Amino acid sequence: MDYANEKLHEEKVFKDPVHRYVHVRDRVIWDLIGTREFQRLRRIKQLGTTYLTFHGAEHSRFNHSLGVYEIVRRIVDDVFSGRPEWKEGERLLVLCAALLHDLGHGPFSHSFEKVFDLDHEQFTQRIILGDTEVHDVLVKVSPDFPKHVAEVIAKTYKDKQVVSLISSQIDADRMDYLQRDAYFTGVSYGHFDMERILRVMRPKEDQVVIKQSGMHAVEDYIMSRYQMYWQVYFHPVTRSAEVILTKILHRAKALYKQEYPFKQDPIHFYSLFETNLTLEDYLKLDESVILYYFQMWQDEEDPILRDLSKRFLNRQLFKYVEFDPAKEYKKHSELEALFKKAGIDPDYYLVVDSSSDLPYDFYRPGEEEERLPIHLVTPSGDIRELSRESHIVNGISGKRRTDHKLYFPADLLEDERTKKTTKRQIKNY
Amino acid sequence: MDYANEKLHEEKVFKDPVHRYVHVRDRVIWDLIGTREFQRLRRIKQLGTTYLTFHGAEHSRFNHSLGVYEIVRRIVDDVFSGRPEWKEGERLLVLCAALLHDLGHGPFSHSFEKVFDLDHEQFTQRIILGDTEVHDVLVKVSPDFPKHVAEVIAKTYKDKQVVSLISSQIDADRMDYLQRDAYFTGVSYGHFDMERILRVMRPKEDQVVIKQSGMHAVEDYIMSRYQMYWQVYFHPVTRSAEVILTKILHRAKALYKQEYPFKQDPIHFYSLFETNLTLEDYLKLDESVILYYFQMWQDEEDPILRDLSKRFLNRQLFKYVEFDPAKEYKKHSELEALFKKAGIDPDYYLVVDSSSDLPYDFYRPGEEEERLPIHLVTPSGDIRELSRESHIVNGISGKRRTDHKLYFPADLLEDERTKKTTKRQIKNY
Amino acid sequence: MDYANEKLHEEKVFKDPVHRYVHVRDRVIWDLIGTREFQRLRRIKQLGTTYLTFHGAEHSRFNHSLGVYEIVRRIVDDVFSGRPEWKEGERLLVLCAALLHDLGHGPFSHSFEKVFDLDHEQFTQRIILGDTEVHDVLVKVSPDFPKHVAEVIAKTYKDKQVVSLISSQIDADRMDYLQRDAYFTGVSYGHFDMERILRVMRPKEDQVVIKQSGMHAVEDYIMSRYQMYWQVYFHPVTRSAEVILTKILHRAKALYKQEYPFKQDPIHFYSLFETNLTLEDYLKLDESVILYYFQMWQDEEDPILRDLSKRFLNRQLFKYVEFDPAKEYKKHSELEALFKKAGIDPDYYLVVDSSSDLPYDFYRPGEEEERLPIHLVTPSGDIRELSRESHIVNGISGKRRTDHKLYFPADLLEDERTKKTTKRQIKNY
Amino acid sequence: MDYANEKLHEEKVFKDPVHRYVHVRDRVIWDLIGTREFQRLRRIKQLGTTYLTFHGAEHSRFNHSLGVYEIVRRIVDDVFSGRPEWKEGERLLVLCAALLHDLGHGPFSHSFEKVFDLDHEQFTQRIILGDTEVHDVLVKVSPDFPKHVAEVIAKTYKDKQVVSLISSQIDADRMDYLQRDAYFTGVSYGHFDMERILRVMRPKEDQVVIKQSGMHAVEDYIMSRYQMYWQVYFHPVTRSAEVILTKILHRAKALYKQEYPFKQDPIHFYSLFETNLTLEDYLKLDESVILYYFQMWQDEEDPILRDLSKRFLNRQLFKYVEFDPAKEYKKHSELEALFKKAGIDPDYYLVVDSSSDLPYDFYRPGEEEERLPIHLVTPSGDIRELSRESHIVNGISGKRRTDHKLYFPADLLEDERTKKTTKRQIKNY
Repeated sequence: MDYANEKLHEEKVFKDPVHRYVHVRDRVIWDLIGTREFQRLRRIKQLGTTYLTFHGAEHSRFNHSLGVYEIVRRIVDDVFSGRPEWKEGERLLVLCAALLHDLGHGPFSHSFEKVFDLDHEQFTQRIILGDTEVHDVLVKVSPDFPKHVAEVIAKTYKDKQVVSLISSQIDADRMDYLQRDAYFTGVSYGHFDMERILRVMRPKEDQVVIKQSGMHAVEDYIMSRYQMYWQVYFHPVTRSAEVILTKILHRAKALYKQEYPFKQDPIHFYSLFETNLTLEDYLKLDESVILYYFQMWQDEEDPILRDLSKRFLNRQLFKYVEFDPAKEYKKHSELEALFKKAGIDPDYYLVVDSSSDLPYDFYRPGEEEERLPIHLVTPSGDIRELSRESHIVNGISGKRRTDHKLYFPADLLEDERTKKTTKRQIKNY
Repeated sequence: MDYANEKLHEEKVFKDPVHRYVHVRDRVIWDLIGTREFQRLRRIKQLGTTYLTFHGAEHSRFNHSLGVYEIVRRIVDDVFSGRPEWKEGERLLVLCAALLHDLGHGPFSHSFEKVFDLDHEQFTQRIILGDTEVHDVLVKVSPDFPKHVAEVIAKTYKDKQVVSLISSQIDADRMDYLQRDAYFTGVSYGHFDMERILRVMRPKEDQVVIKQSGMHAVEDYIMSRYQMYWQVYFHPVTRSAEVILTKILHRAKALYKQEYPFKQDPIHFYSLFETNLTLEDYLKLDESVILYYFQMWQDEEDPILRDLSKRFLNRQLFKYVEFDPAKEYKKHSELEALFKKAGIDPDYYLVVDSSSDLPYDFYRPGEEEERLPIHLVTPSGDIRELSRESHIVNGISGKRRTDHKLYFPADLLEDERTKKTTKRQIKNY
Repeated sequence: MDYANEKLHEEKVFKDPVHRYVHVRDRVIWDLIGTREFQRLRRIKQLGTTYLTFHGAEHSRFNHSLGVYEIVRRIVDDVFSGRPEWKEGERLLVLCAALLHDLGHGPFSHSFEKVFDLDHEQFTQRIILGDTEVHDVLVKVSPDFPKHVAEVIAKTYKDKQVVSLISSQIDADRMDYLQRDAYFTGVSYGHFDMERILRVMRPKEDQVVIKQSGMHAVEDYIMSRYQMYWQVYFHPVTRSAEVILTKILHRAKALYKQEYPFKQDPIHFYSLFETNLTLEDYLKLDESVILYYFQMWQDEEDPILRDLSKRFLNRQLFKYVEFDPAKEYKKHSELEALFKKAGIDPDYYLVVDSSSDLPYDFYRPGEEEERLPIHLVTPSGDIRELSRESHIVNGISGKRRTDHKLYFPADLLEDERTKKTTKRQIKNY
Repeated sequence: MDYANEKLHEEKVFKDPVHRYVHVRDRVIWDLIGTREFQRLRRIKQLGTTYLTFHGAEHSRFNHSLGVYEIVRRIVDDVFSGRPEWKEGERLLVLCAALLHDLGHGPFSHSFEKVFDLDHEQFTQRIILGDTEVHDVLVKVSPDFPKHVAEVIAKTYKDKQVVSLISSQIDADRMDYLQRDAYFTGVSYGHFDMERILRVMRPKEDQVVIKQSGMHAVEDYIMSRYQMYWQVYFHPVTRSAEVILTKILHRAKALYKQEYPFKQDPIHFYSLFETNLTLEDYLKLDESVILYYFQMWQDEEDPILRDLSKRFLNRQLFKYVEFDPAKEYKKHSELEALFKKAGIDPDYYLVVDSSSDLPYDFYRPGEEEERLPIHLVTPSGDIRELSRESHIVNGISGKRRTDHKLYFPADLLEDERTKKTTKRQIKNY
């Protein structure tokens, strides 16, 4: 039998707390899971610094990737299989894309991407197409197969129906992470009736639509997403940890540029600092490597690098206040001046962080971030956009919500030496 | 108000997936959680290598420690409070002991302790009594307080009732880990009615007893424990990962003793290799440090260290077969000879591993590992030992179950070069 | 000790699938649960005819009443206790009101109230104030106590804070039934973080407010309520069963008025038909009595009563189509004519049923159904109305949603004899 | 297409709180669910009087029957389908048998069967084979089909593999009721990993065996069963209600035999009292009918019938003490004498009730109640009996546990008039 259709002698299962079991029958999937690039995802947390807010959120991207695969497997094998509008030939392609869609994530992706101008999506492409174990597996299916997998993940694949299973406003990626992140954090948001949603998904021309009878389950999913964003993903304490993490990386880079004599050479960071990162360099980066350096840096001479590293490892985070950048920019520069006067470098210790989310949107062609809407299909086959049918979704559709906070180390301000100026600063709030 | 009785201005809560919320009112507890020694537990997995079998088991000892604290808090505040046989004065002591009972755990404790002859319980003592942030907090309660906390954890404290809340055959430690490990692995064992058990616990002279009406809940707990041991804790795949981990450490130590030129100096291991580990050295060890070295060692010249490190990181584990050391010791030495002939060092690649558990035992004075039995109390106040009342517990009481397995790298044996000898070896099984 | 403060020798618990345990310490509560009027609630389903749609929904009002009591108990004992704005003296009053708030419900309340012009709230008052076992218990607390309990339930009690625990847009009644009905039906709506809501409830002047930090949990609760209304409570199949039930009662009454010779005298219905229902008559009505009569009526001569009774018991419900009464009233009268021509009485077999809900509303003085809004309290003590703070709630606030359906027996229309006219009728849709 | 293979146009689902959804594709199954005999199961509680102990246990046999069907459907469609040892041709047969296996249950079966010497299994046969809607559906499949369905349920069907899916020591019936009863009562027993058990079930010659790798899941199931029996099914309060129910029926029958003038003729009981019950009579009996009569009988002249009926409806149950019939028979007759002296009829008010269970047994040919053991199959295909492989099961295998209790109305004994004799009686305990 050819490799693409090869089945395992006996189905393998992974015990999964969210989906009960993840089922694998295809040899290709099994081999992909065994590659070093995929196993590396075990050393990268799904939610970055969130574990410092919700202690249960220690789960990895490995976890999530298996989950997305399992959801797509259920859609294509249990729901779509046999339907005329579904192309059975795309089955293995979409399963592989589901499994590998987050392959390029690095440690604490959000901060690293910002500081070093990286893009995990681009690395996913490079891993799939480059000289890797993953590529070796995929290419055994067919010479074009790696490229097609990469295209599905990049949303450039010609068949948009396949793409939308993984990337749309209601896709397997989101359905997994909402439930998984809710499970591990223990919050009571993030629950919705996925069983129902799967049952009402239908392949239809170049998209995946939802039978109208399942509209309420979709509303519930949209609300879950909204709540998870504001309750978990944008939690101000998590962002505080991220602010510190970002500043550690900035500081290390700045010191390197100044030829600061690190006690131990940060060899893993060299190519990051010099922006000539190779794929092999990147694959060596995981969260244990980063945390190892933060441990080392706790003993560095440089007071800022030392202090920030300690803060991150021992969870002595910055405090925060609400901040309106539009109105309060003047206040901000006054505060900067006061910080400097107090001997505290505002570049590292006075940080504005903003979070923003658009919970759902209908299609607005030409907009910066075009979003494909969720379409309902009526019993008579008509297609209707979700927010026109649902009061609830209409109530939040297209309404961007943004939150700005100003982060600073409250403890430093209580330090003896800065007391006098501090008092004045505190009055500012 | 004195420090021991100081309450937080407002109760703090941690969202916990197992107990919903962990509640903190006491300033002492809050301060302990904030110490670097306690935060370090975030970087040590609760279940060591189990995440390579059950991908959800990525939770840390930080998680579990908060859970044990919360269970004890509920016992003393909601169940025991006001009962004449409970000494309210021991409340803070037992809360601190609950929170800190695992403080001395190092990375992958089981393997490290075996290879380097360490004892995490001894390190718990040293952290509590030594020059640490934890000690600084505890000593503010009273000069003797650190010593008392250490004694409770070491089971040498004079009041055995206090000790048994944390260390007995039905204690807060076990009640938390069974539920927590079940939650994160996703297995359906590990559930029992803790609410009910808490409600029927009673302080009674020098122990904690269970009202007879709660016997069935205790039976269920004993069964959960039994199942978790054999389904999760002693899972042969987990043990395979542990075998490899142990052999990595052995190899690194052997190379160090031979003055092998490591590409990067394993400075964090020096004092381990030379068995002159200081408390400060120990506190620097966490799983990110260990995984960092394993990554480095993937690129070492030494083929054994390199191979084993890759196996661990990329989860290419050893296979296993049942093995009876009593009967098959001869087979084992024959196999050793064959391995040597095939150029595979049996010291690293042919390993017998044994697991053994005694699910419950009544009191057998003088036995190697004395266990305090679980006592039921009847409505008339009589005390009865559990296994005499329960058919189920009696059926497994005192029956040690042991399992031996022989681990080896099946893939190596399939290697071209070893094919001929391999065939003969395979015949041995 | 006086009766009001008398505690049970040992706390009693009820195992409850929603709240785990319901705890009773107060003698008064225990005695109320034991009365025949309260035990009668076991024979009245919480969700009327819903079990014909969701087979799990067989739970009784007894169930729910204990649940509301338990929620209020937790609020007053765990959250409000000790707060200056909470009057401890109202504790027993609000507990009794919580337990008894649904006491006056009859069998399949909704239909009975409509057909016989009854009002369960009025019966709750009569039971509490009349010659009943419940009254005997309450009056032992104090002569005024029954009256106060009745006032709290009727929302006329002077202290509105007490009233709002039981009747407001976020009260213990709703919090219990949403969760309970979700649990028993098995739907995945109806979940919200009640633990969190309880923790952020605060007594404040004449109301109960929510700390702003809990706003998202409240949003989630409002959405749960919305979904439960449309997914469960207003489910068209449930309404179909209710339509039939209503028509059975109408028919029986009409026959009685015509002095139809029932095979077995419907003695339990006499006073209903003649609208001179005594309290004792009412207390004898429960769902087993009603179902008993429906069984009898399956064998009656009258074809309509017989047919409708069979339909209800054997779940041969009416089908339905969307119907817009504003536009389609003409169609309706044409259909009526056609039904008559086909020998099917449209009074019983062609029914328009409407459901309507206002998911949340701010205060609109003078409106027909004034609703007290949910108020958030900021850290600085300001009070803000929920829909001004929450995008989500604002999106649905004050927007009444109504649904009209036309019910009819599709099977009858397929009957041989009516075939020709049927065809024409079907064309109408 | 023939009726046996006819599929519904679109799959129907029932929302089920235990299995999430019950799926129906087969026209035959859909039609059976719609019969009046099957709908009647909605008016018969799954757990009889248990709702008086666990208020959540109000679920019906309709509920459970759908659940058993769904489990069997998953076994045959998801697990057995395609395996050579499974005869696909038996699929519809086993699905129908699963759905209908409890069809003959009457109201409060346990008590009715005891008092009136009925046998629900015999009525299941009569309904399937008699002149019923169920029979009309089944016979459309083939003339022999009703007989085969009846045989599978009666365990006389030739193919024992088919029988054992529904009746064995690990069958779909037990797997559903353990989980369902646990869900509705809210107890934490009754959970086991059914998903896993389903995955390891294999058709094998004339039985269904379990892959050895699933042994621990089966152990857990056996323990769940054990706990549910003693914690829920044999709960002494439930048995107290059953004792009273039994005595009501006895009393009514005795009065009838004495030609007592009932206020309302108990026409539904006539044929029961005279033991000439027809199928049609039987089908008219459901719990609403029984409860209707109990309501009537609350107003009867006969003090015993009146008192017992009130007790049952208002849950004023008998108290109980442990009782050893072997040793204490003398005490019992002394007590009887004392009761008589006090004017309390011991035939109705002094009742010994015994419960007994054998949690698991291997095969003991010739024993009164032969049980087919659970067999494990090893990877090499060997068959091993469960209790020889499992310590846990071995510990309880073949050990019958029995519990005797003496029930009596403690309140009556506290009555003024009986005080003197009471004192002496109380001394007896």
